[in-house]
Amino acid sequence: MKIAVGQINPTVGDMSGNAGRINKVVSRAVQEGADLVIFPELTATGYPPRDLLLRPDIINRVEKVLEVDISPASRQVGILIGAPVRSREGQLFNAALLYSGGRLLGRQDKTLLPNYDVFDENRYFLPAERRKLIAFGGLNLGVTICEDIWNDKDYWGEVRYDVDPVADLVSDGADLIINISASPYNAGKCLLRGRMLCSTAKKYHRSIIYVNQVGGNDELVFDGSSLQINAAGEVVWHAKSFQEDFAVLNAVSSGPGRAGFSGPAEEGIQDIFDALVLGVQDYMRKTGFSQAVVGLSGGIDSAVTAALACAAVGPENVLGVAMPSRYSSRESLEDARSLSDNLGMQLRTIPIDSVFSSYLDTFYPGNPVQVDTAEENLQARIRGNILMFISNREGHLVLSTGNKSELAVGYSTLYGDMSGGLAVLADVPKTMVYQLANYINRSRIIIPPRIISKPPSAELSPGQVDADSLPPYPVLDEILKAYIEDNLSEDEIVQLQGSRDLVRDVLRKVDRAEFKRRQAAPGLRVTTKAFGMGRRFPIAWRRG
Amino acid sequence: MKIAVGQINPTVGDMSGNAGRINKVVSRAVQEGADLVIFPELTATGYPPRDLLLRPDIINRVEKVLEVDISPASRQVGILIGAPVRSREGQLFNAALLYSGGRLLGRQDKTLLPNYDVFDENRYFLPAERRKLIAFGGLNLGVTICEDIWNDKDYWGEVRYDVDPVADLVSDGADLIINISASPYNAGKCLLRGRMLCSTAKKYHRSIIYVNQVGGNDELVFDGSSLQINAAGEVVWHAKSFQEDFAVLNAVSSGPGRAGFSGPAEEGIQDIFDALVLGVQDYMRKTGFSQAVVGLSGGIDSAVTAALACAAVGPENVLGVAMPSRYSSRESLEDARSLSDNLGMQLRTIPIDSVFSSYLDTFYPGNPVQVDTAEENLQARIRGNILMFISNREGHLVLSTGNKSELAVGYSTLYGDMSGGLAVLADVPKTMVYQLANYINRSRIIIPPRIISKPPSAELSPGQVDADSLPPYPVLDEILKAYIEDNLSEDEIVQLQGSRDLVRDVLRKVDRAEFKRRQAAPGLRVTTKAFGMGRRFPIAWRRG
Repeated sequence: MKIAVGQINPTVGDMSGNAGRINKVVSRAVQEGADLVIFPELTATGYPPRDLLLRPDIINRVEKVLEVDISPASRQVGILIGAPVRSREGQLFNAALLYSGGRLLGRQDKTLLPNYDVFDENRYFLPAERRKLIAFGGLNLGVTICEDIWNDKDYWGEVRYDVDPVADLVSDGADLIINISASPYNAGKCLLRGRMLCSTAKKYHRSIIYVNQVGGNDELVFDGSSLQINAAGEVVWHAKSFQEDFAVLNAVSSGPGRAGFSGPAEEGIQDIFDALVLGVQDYMRKTGFSQAVVGLSGGIDSAVTAALACAAVGPENVLGVAMPSRYSSRESLEDARSLSDNLGMQLRTIPIDSVFSSYLDTFYPGNPVQVDTAEENLQARIRGNILMFISNREGHLVLSTGNKSELAVGYSTLYGDMSGGLAVLADVPKTMVYQLANYINRSRIIIPPRIISKPPSAELSPGQVDADSLPPYPVLDEILKAYIEDNLSEDEIVQLQGSRDLVRDVLRKVDRAEFKRRQAAPGLRVTTKAFGMGRRFPIAWRRG
Repeated sequence: MKIAVGQINPTVGDMSGNAGRINKVVSRAVQEGADLVIFPELTATGYPPRDLLLRPDIINRVEKVLEVDISPASRQVGILIGAPVRSREGQLFNAALLYSGGRLLGRQDKTLLPNYDVFDENRYFLPAERRKLIAFGGLNLGVTICEDIWNDKDYWGEVRYDVDPVADLVSDGADLIINISASPYNAGKCLLRGRMLCSTAKKYHRSIIYVNQVGGNDELVFDGSSLQINAAGEVVWHAKSFQEDFAVLNAVSSGPGRAGFSGPAEEGIQDIFDALVLGVQDYMRKTGFSQAVVGLSGGIDSAVTAALACAAVGPENVLGVAMPSRYSSRESLEDARSLSDNLGMQLRTIPIDSVFSSYLDTFYPGNPVQVDTAEENLQARIRGNILMFISNREGHLVLSTGNKSELAVGYSTLYGDMSGGLAVLADVPKTMVYQLANYINRSRIIIPPRIISKPPSAELSPGQVDADSLPPYPVLDEILKAYIEDNLSEDEIVQLQGSRDLVRDVLRKVDRAEFKRRQAAPGLRVTTKAFGMGRRFPIAWRRG
């Protein structure tokens, strides 16, 4: 049996658009002689559909599309597709539906519903009541959905759920394990996933076909990276990462594979770069923006953001705006100019000083400058206003440039540099921003070396540098990772890095900046714990 | 047996502060001769602790406080208290713990874990494995936690869960049902809750003691409104709503009650007013602000917000700022002046026109005014900046004034009038804002009648009124409720209200404004479906 893999990029809620995309892949599968074509988890709606799933009209629309667009197409080739399915009592299941001969041949609901981090599946779905093989093309298919395959006690040592769907299906006689997924990317995820799948295939002596969604949906970027693993636990095929892909595979691969897991999923800064580019690209496309605007301070965050934006939508669609103040250095403006020349993007210069003076005059005639946080924030807000004005008048999406380290400790201005539709680096720690900058410069200088080498500064008061109020970024980032990603306590962090006073001060800053993050633009998730939908902290709380 | 009810207002995460509050109530219970004192769900941490529950250091702290502060206090009186409890395997349960004689006497975990709307309990907790009576003071106590008592199939017709903990406990021989809750307020909730509890008591011929948390925690306001219902299903005691309360009750009330449910929980605009006042008060207190600043446009939203703020923290702690532009009417400024006089709060006037001109000059020398959305938003953002400047320099919390109807259709400016630490009216539809204004004026004129009677306008362009771009608010609010609270489809809404074109236009506006709401300040929830943590919609989606 020949199985086609349709690694596609659906748009959330766009059931007819997704059906069109599915049917193009179905046609190609027919042309190339496939017997079955497999699509990712919840392809019908795109993942994550979130509270759209609570709307009966949305589910009606899914049912209609399955009936009118998908089912008839299965007269030519089997179609295995993920979709929400409603029971007669109105309860939803996260299902894999196998259509063949113009009708529904089999269905397997998802058993293990993730409800941690960015996942809310218990909010929407009931778990499968049973796991049952689906006979197709002479094989017994063991169909699983995403989380279902992540519960192997032998691999993980401990597990989150009592049931292991893969074990159940193998003991029932599955010839082949299929997994349809919407598994979001984070640094290291492809490797983790690949190794785990190889181990599972080998343990059960079954080949696995793993089909993952690709594309950016708000905060989440799905990398695709679909795989076929043979029964010896070797990778026999892998899809491209961070783009749509298609292949026709032999259902039970007899070919030799590559022992161990390596390949496109070898993790590195390139994957993070690609994930961010796709995230920007899809956020813009799916919200209907063709052009972006970025404030260029002459610093490294805005340089990397601009480079990512240019890679995503082309430099002709990215406008840089330099907004010098009385505290900006001449070098910063020069660096912003060189950067935009190197990227081939347009640069507009709009000085903020006369607006700044006008505000101060309005507050206090004679405008005595006090150089305090209020004035620092005001300058950042004037810049935010200018970018939003350009956005409102000319139609660009504002990309905000703050990094995760700043967002963590609140070293950013709400309604100022935090303004924007998408926060490109919101989950990129400052130390990783440097890695991205070096990656961007890998074949030729794009980011001027001075941007990379100079001490980071917000340039909001005379001679200000980040190091005045923050520890060195390598130290800060280690503390932040320990606190935010690893949930370590103050005591445990002090063992790792930094003095008691420093650690306590950083943790306090993180806790107190929650009110800013609550109003932050959505950011692209690239670590195991991003601010946003996956980290739900109170604002009005006190450590006591 | 005498049972004391400790309806307290804990602060999330402040385990030692909460223990102090608990122990004051314990002392009073001892003084007044109680045998047992009951506190709400998760009193130890405050509800909702959200992802604090995922931090081992937080759970360690809870365990410490229970051991050192709570358990010893139970030498004098039994203490039934809600707290997260960790199993040896590190899994959490949402438990009710009964301490007596200086040790833990009994424990009942929560069986039904709500995971809808604002609730995420499956994210943190495992359900109780069993329900077991706790013998104390000669009675078999049937202890339940919040959601556990909301699953009576006879009352609701259909239910969300298979298990009914109350039925289990009664059939095991419970003499008395106790429910400890953290049940957030929304309009109509007290009545709903009271009726349901009366019905349950009557059905099982058991009296019920219901102890609810009070206080505002971020978006949620808990009303308290604790109750004792006798076995005939009559209310024999009710606590105050929206404040801490204490009483000592006979465990099994023999006294006559009031048939049916009425009383303080008779719903009306007063409850909504009280909920909002408490929400503002607690948000400020728990985040450490003593003063608030409100932009006063001369319109009804800012008038009601200012009145609520004055009720919450006193007019001496509320600063109004009038920020007239070239488009502001003289009447608006007069109305803002009368309002602040009536409230007894300070008013500062800061005209925005010279800053506005300065921006336009910066963009286009000669500053040609185009009167477009970009300029409208810019004016709103200048006002936002001014308020934030005052906040940053003088330490006030900015209260934003937008109502739910505006937030729904995106009739508001991100980083402009949406600026603020708390969005007081974010869940109050415009029609309800009028009800609040009339309630505020119930005994004397506080809000000048012209503010209530004039057509709503943002005054951001010449002669602009809301009715230019929106349907009349009663129509709009009915459409919005149908769409947002009741999840109705376009077809269903057209049956209720408005033309097809109008309904479609409103729904499209709601969908498209999600990007603004994602960056909105937290708002106080007073309806069954507020924007914020309880409504999780994608931004980059398309209805297709």
